[in-house]
Amino acid sequence: MTSPVIKVDPKLDLVLEREVDVPLELVWRVWTTPERLRHWFVPKPWTITACEIDLRPGGTFATTMRSPEGQEFPNLGTYLEVTPLERLIFTDTLLPGYRPSANPFFTAVLELEKSAAGTKYRAIAIHGNEEARKSHEEMGFHDGWGTVVNQMVDYIKANSASIGG
Amino acid sequence: MTSPVIKVDPKLDLVLEREVDVPLELVWRVWTTPERLRHWFVPKPWTITACEIDLRPGGTFATTMRSPEGQEFPNLGTYLEVTPLERLIFTDTLLPGYRPSANPFFTAVLELEKSAAGTKYRAIAIHGNEEARKSHEEMGFHDGWGTVVNQMVDYIKANSASIGG
Repeated sequence: MTSPVIKVDPKLDLVLEREVDVPLELVWRVWTTPERLRHWFVPKPWTITACEIDLRPGGTFATTMRSPEGQEFPNLGTYLEVTPLERLIFTDTLLPGYRPSANPFFTAVLELEKSAAGTKYRAIAIHGNEEARKSHEEMGFHDGWGTVVNQMVDYIKANSASIGG
Repeated sequence: MTSPVIKVDPKLDLVLEREVDVPLELVWRVWTTPERLRHWFVPKPWTITACEIDLRPGGTFATTMRSPEGQEFPNLGTYLEVTPLERLIFTDTLLPGYRPSANPFFTAVLELEKSAAGTKYRAIAIHGNEEARKSHEEMGFHDGWGTVVNQMVDYIKANSASIGG
């Protein structure tokens, strides 16, 4: 399923793999629709206060995360690959229109596959060096991204009729 | 002709536009074939001593430039967009497989269009800040990229039969 260009390096990269009991089409939908993504994309009690998605290579992927104390953290990046229902690749290394960013940190790969239970969900964080991987790990990659998957599943189950419609 | 995601910013970017009297198909060919590219891609007496091209988004674009004194300068980047005979976008901000690079500097856009004379040739260097644009300008962007276009045209004219075949 891995895109032939993506090569996971265990020293540099972080991988989260899960099987979730929600339909693949709805996972894709909540990842690619701003008004859906904001409900689950950051571990609560943090919130997403703004989200912009221009779903094509070079297009905007922007989110603003807000801490429980009310501090806002904007993230701006761009999509690199958009293969509907299969693979989404984005990075903060480039801004929309492929302009080099001031704070390059990582590239994220989301891969989806149908499974007996529902959807095989794989998220990969690709870093340029061990330091970046380590700091991402210490920021709570596994807990954080895992929590977010749980929130996503809960959100899909509670809203499947409207998301699918 | 500009890809809708590319937005040129005169403060940050550098643009070289030329009309050249060689066929567009051959310009595309010499840009995308390692054994052709090495003959013209760097202003003489510099030479290209190695070139690797994996022509797809996320694929390798690597060249090694050699100074007249014999010092070698390897460049490693990846393609972002490959639209045959129209547009080629690559960057040194990401390595092959979209891994963040250690020395991000710019994204390059090559755009080609058929014209009465042959080919309208447009090269854009997209930078993240004014400092990078300035240093690229001081490295000789306009002379260097202009010289390289002349070398490319000469190379195509001298070898058009074999390049086209």
